[in-house]
Parts: sequence; structure tokens; C-alpha cells
Amino acid sequence: MKHFNTIAIVGVGLIGGSVGLAVRQRGLADCVVGIGRRQSSLRIARQAGAVTTTTIDLAKGVAEAELVIVCTPVGRIVEDVRTAAAHAPPGTLITDVGSTKAQIVAALDEGLPRNCRFLGGHPLAGGEKTGPSHARADLFDGRVVVLTPTKNTRAEDFDTLEKFWNSLGAVVVQMPPEEHDQALALTSHLPHAAAAVLVGMVPERLFRFSGAGLLDTTRIAAGDPALWTQIFMQNRANLAKALEGFIHRLTQLQTALLQANESLIQQILEVGKTNRDALGN
Amino acid sequence: MKHFNTIAIVGVGLIGGSVGLAVRQRGLADCVVGIGRRQSSLRIARQAGAVTTTTIDLAKGVAEAELVIVCTPVGRIVEDVRTAAAHAPPGTLITDVGSTKAQIVAALDEGLPRNCRFLGGHPLAGGEKTGPSHARADLFDGRVVVLTPTKNTRAEDFDTLEKFWNSLGAVVVQMPPEEHDQALALTSHLPHAAAAVLVGMVPERLFRFSGAGLLDTTRIAAGDPALWTQIFMQNRANLAKALEGFIHRLTQLQTALLQANESLIQQILEVGKTNRDALGN
Repeated sequence: MKHFNTIAIVGVGLIGGSVGLAVRQRGLADCVVGIGRRQSSLRIARQAGAVTTTTIDLAKGVAEAELVIVCTPVGRIVEDVRTAAAHAPPGTLITDVGSTKAQIVAALDEGLPRNCRFLGGHPLAGGEKTGPSHARADLFDGRVVVLTPTKNTRAEDFDTLEKFWNSLGAVVVQMPPEEHDQALALTSHLPHAAAAVLVGMVPERLFRFSGAGLLDTTRIAAGDPALWTQIFMQNRANLAKALEGFIHRLTQLQTALLQANESLIQQILEVGKTNRDALGN
Repeated sequence: MKHFNTIAIVGVGLIGGSVGLAVRQRGLADCVVGIGRRQSSLRIARQAGAVTTTTIDLAKGVAEAELVIVCTPVGRIVEDVRTAAAHAPPGTLITDVGSTKAQIVAALDEGLPRNCRFLGGHPLAGGEKTGPSHARADLFDGRVVVLTPTKNTRAEDFDTLEKFWNSLGAVVVQMPPEEHDQALALTSHLPHAAAAVLVGMVPERLFRFSGAGLLDTTRIAAGDPALWTQIFMQNRANLAKALEGFIHRLTQLQTALLQANESLIQQILEVGKTNRDALGN
């Protein structure tokens, strides 16, 4: 397991804070610098033991970093990586944890200053709760982390990040950025869209008739709308296509209902149950 | 609190078994007869203490009942209530726990044999786990139970059932059957439909890219397809209408994505968050 002198974490929310806690629990780095825009979040992260030092100055924070992990909202990642590359030691490896990859990787795959390299990443962890106070050292335990190398990626950089995430308990899967975004449109962004639209159409007078089904189905809609707007915008073509398929299938069910087509209704529900049982808890 | 000599529970699954456990824990009846079609379920219910005696003979099971609670799948409730009325003591009050009400109440509101009366009910409790082994005495604690009286309902019968459910910890809400079905189409049947269709369109090769969002959003799709087909069939006009509204709003979001209309995307997500936060956990 590689040991780092200094790891810089840009953005100490749920994911950044959890990376810090996991790194420190496992003793993977001597120094973990937490970089953020709000002193309040930095204080929580420091008090939780997720970072050893903090700063609101990105340039200063990355000055001695061997590895920079950018955990800011997807709309800010490109800019934060560029700034980090301009101030980190020459040749520093920079990665991210953004929920979209194609736009970010396309912008950062070449031409970073000072010989710095960017390799995109996305740990499939987290939920509707955000912020450093929900960070956990075991957040990545058994979870998938997607890394999105390109033809420009050095094998040694992929190797470094794969070992890093493995040492945090995660399983690394390699995918092209575009393929990642297509997959996540179905498994993450469409469920979020469905949840938000669904709960958005329930009038307040009916709230008391909600059971476990509605609550589970719409839980992720409590996530931060600003963060998710950025994710939707960055992956809008794939999400629009996923929505098209969803609408098509919902229309089939609607027609089956109007025609009292009991066997088709049951078939749709059977396919759902088969898949859901296979997904596990 | 009214004490019953004998309560008969027809169908000892999650709901019927939980009613039995709650009744016995509170000592509301001397005898709780569990009536079912499978000896295996009846045995589990008896061993759990949900019922005092069991039978697979509905006619015999209700012969001494003061109150009959029909907890069978919605497609069987009408027939089971009629059979119970034909064999229960004259004037027995019969209720149900079905997830749909309009068709059931219309069929049973008048003309039951032996002066028996039916008053429809629906406890908003339960989830994707079914069967007597998941039954809990506190399942109805703080939950809403809808009762659907009609112009033929006697005030004393409503009063009896309201007190009964209150003594099991539930809050009783009174609604016309049609209004119940319209409300539940939005708060229960549409979420189920969305969950089943959503998870049904995720190909197996993408299962490993599922996070907490997809899992939560589709959890209820693990429910019994046969049971839910009956619910959808009985409430198909209202559910088709709810689907129409859902499809309309999803199409708006799809258009917003294709047009890169960031403010409309954020607005849709904000409405979802506001409602979801108001719903609670």
C-alpha cells in the first residue's frame, strides 16, 4: 500500500470528508489538507479528524500535495482541477469524485500546467444526506469506484488510484467516460429524476396518505437541487434518452391499464420484481 | 375500549397477522380465529401468537365472530366477505384492509345475507415484505387507517371500527371510497408502478452501478406482482390518470434537458425537495 506524505482534499463534504476519515484511519498519509470555501465545513471536518490541516486557499492547500482529490460539485470540478494543477508540485496526480465524467475528462485530459495529470473517478457512494457531518470512514467499504482512463492516461497513475481506492475498501471498475455517463444516467440520474417528479406531483393534502412505498421511492429527492441540476446538465443527453425509454414503458403500462390487460400488467410487475430481487438490499 | 369475545381474521399475512398480534397483546378479544388457505401460514401465525385457533374453513371460522376482518388480496375480498356474511352470526360487522376501496365497497354496501354489514377499511401500513413471519404488534402504531363509510353505514359500526383501530394505535381518517382510490393512486399505486418500470429497464450488466438512490427508489418493486396486479386492476382508471400526469411532467423535464433549460431543471428539483422534506422520514 503506497504511503503519501500529503494528500489534498478539495471540498470536505460527505465524500471528501469520508475520504479523509478513511485515509487517516488507515494511516495512508502523514498530512491530509482539507480545502474548502466555508470555514464552518472545514471546522467540522477537522474536528471529526477527517483532515489534519485546513485552508480556504486552494493554491496554498495543494502546494505540497502528492495526490489531489477534488470533491467539489460537478460544475466546479474543471476549474478546481486547473487551479490545483497550477499550484501543485510539478507532476502531481489529480483525481475527482464527480457523478459525471465525459465533460470533465474531455476538459482535463490534456494540457494541464506543470506536467500535472488528471484521471477521473466516481465512487458510487453517498445518498440524500450531504455535508461533512455525515462523513464515515467506512463509506467506500465494498462500494464500486469507477475510474475513467483515456489513451493519455499513464498506467502508473491508474495503478496508484486503483490501489488507493482498494485500500479504502472499494472495488475499482474501469470504463470510458462516455460509457460511465450512459450507465449512470440509468442507474442514478433517472431514479433521481423520477423521485423528484413523483413527489413533486403529490399535493400537500395527500401527504398523510403516504406509506413506506412513497417514502422509499422518493427519498433521494431530498438531495441538494443545485448539485443535481449540475449533474443533470452535464449528462443531459443521456438522461433525456433514459427518460424517453422510461416514458415509453410507462405509456405501455398506462395503455395496459386502460385496456384492462391484466396479463401485461402482471408481466411488467414480474420483470420489476425479478430485477429488484437481483439487485439485493 | 370494546372487548370482543371472538374476532375472526381471514388471511393471516403481514396485515392479518399484525392485527392478530396487536389484538392479543392488548387483550381486545378472548378468541382470535385465524382463517387461511395454507396450513403453513396458519401455523406461523399460531406459533407467533397472532391467533388462538386456526382453520382453513371460512364458514366454520366465522361461526362465532363478533367482528370479521378480511385481510385477503383485493381480488378475493368481495367473495370472502360474502362467504363470511353467509356463515357469521346474524348482524355481524365485517371489515377489510384492502388497498382499493371503490369496487369492493360498491359490491358489498348492500344486500349482505343475515343482516351482516360491511364497512371498508385500509390501514396504510406494510411494505414490500409480506407474510405472517413479518407481522408485528406495533405495525399500526401512529399509522393512518382509512375507513370508507357510505350513506348506508350505521354510525355505531363506524364508531366500533374507529375505536378498534385507535386501540391498535392507529389514526382513523374517514373518506368516500372513490376519493380514497384517487388519493392512493397518487401516494401508493403510482410509486409502485414507477418503481417496477424503472428497475425493469435497468439491464443486468449495470446492476453493479446501482447506489442507494436506485435501491431506495425501487425497493417496493420487490412486492408480490400478483397482489399488485389485482390492486392496479381495481384502481386502473385512477392509476392511468396518475400515470398521465407523471408522464406529462417527465416529458417537461426531458424537454428542459434537451433545451439545456437549467432554471427549469432546478425548479423541478426544488419542488421535489420541498415536498420530500415535508413528507419526513
